[in-house]
Amino acid sequence: MSSLVVYGAAYSVYVRIVRLALEEKGADYLLEPVDIFADEGLPAGYLERHPFGKIPALAHDGFRLYETVAITQYIDEVLPGPALMPEDPRARARMRQIIAILDSYGYRPFVWDLFVERVRKPQEGAVSDEAVIAQGCVDARTCLKALADLRGEGDLFLGDRPGLADCHAYPMLRYMQLAPEGSALLEEAGWPLRFLEAMDRRPSVAATRSPLEPQD
Amino acid sequence: MSSLVVYGAAYSVYVRIVRLALEEKGADYLLEPVDIFADEGLPAGYLERHPFGKIPALAHDGFRLYETVAITQYIDEVLPGPALMPEDPRARARMRQIIAILDSYGYRPFVWDLFVERVRKPQEGAVSDEAVIAQGCVDARTCLKALADLRGEGDLFLGDRPGLADCHAYPMLRYMQLAPEGSALLEEAGWPLRFLEAMDRRPSVAATRSPLEPQD
Repeated sequence: MSSLVVYGAAYSVYVRIVRLALEEKGADYLLEPVDIFADEGLPAGYLERHPFGKIPALAHDGFRLYETVAITQYIDEVLPGPALMPEDPRARARMRQIIAILDSYGYRPFVWDLFVERVRKPQEGAVSDEAVIAQGCVDARTCLKALADLRGEGDLFLGDRPGLADCHAYPMLRYMQLAPEGSALLEEAGWPLRFLEAMDRRPSVAATRSPLEPQD
Repeated sequence: MSSLVVYGAAYSVYVRIVRLALEEKGADYLLEPVDIFADEGLPAGYLERHPFGKIPALAHDGFRLYETVAITQYIDEVLPGPALMPEDPRARARMRQIIAILDSYGYRPFVWDLFVERVRKPQEGAVSDEAVIAQGCVDARTCLKALADLRGEGDLFLGDRPGLADCHAYPMLRYMQLAPEGSALLEEAGWPLRFLEAMDRRPSVAATRSPLEPQD
């Protein structure tokens, strides 16, 4: 029985990406709490697991790893369960491209400029910066268009079973959906709503719900 | 005979990463000039190849791809020539981790905060921002330490033949070396100088020299 520990917090987009991949593999793992925004700072020794002080980090039978793209592909390569990467090299290149686009051009507008600025800041007593939101809408629309050009024809990004591109996109698009401007952009594009609905039916999504989502 | 075209400019760190990988594979390719800083703007139609207007982009027998990490792994998977990724999944995870660290935590301090700020700005008649350089030194040192903890024992990052981690690191560390502060940090760490010297003996490095390096 192998030992898998994810260090991080359930609110984190990148922690959820790793957990979605683990859930889709059917893997047993422990979520060891690390809150990078905690008043008391990082847990003692955490910088040895992640010298840049971010989350997630992984430990698998003594092997320590950080950086989400390295973790998710490692998980897929070494754990039993359904393959989360396409066999065909061009489809696999598309998968890595979609993930890189989400990191380079999606994460900031989707999560920080729309969700954090519109939803989280007022919840914490701060005022939303309307200029950030306006520019975030422009950048988010460009990114959604680029993703639309690369995805397949189904509801998921590539193929008809969830893979690493889907695990990567879901947490970002789900947070974006909680901002009215984000929700409008997802509806305008169409396919992201079908994607979110398809993923919302997955047990992996239910098992990794964020405390920042509305609770039923 | 397959057709390989790299769109980009020889000064670009990320274009050089892709070209180093192609050279190490022994591949024939065409470098089609795209200068993202040109006064006249991007070539007509380039945004269809790269909707975010960055370089490089790749075309391989009609297959269009952008995002460097997707391109280099695709190149290694589909082209003949020596393998540029380790066989062992943990070593491959380390390779992807090193590349992700270089992108997330290395590129900005190594290239922008040290090389561009100290070397390029004065060449173009602008004044270096000393605060940017000072913070760049702090961040560069943290990143070099993290890389030191993950690399193998030889002069190259992993193993004794150049791989994708080496192709990714070289262009960034080479530019950093051209700033006195960067050179001092590389010397302080030790291993980066041995790495640069080992790579400087590769024909791939000679074939992809940047016009911003001192010309012999």
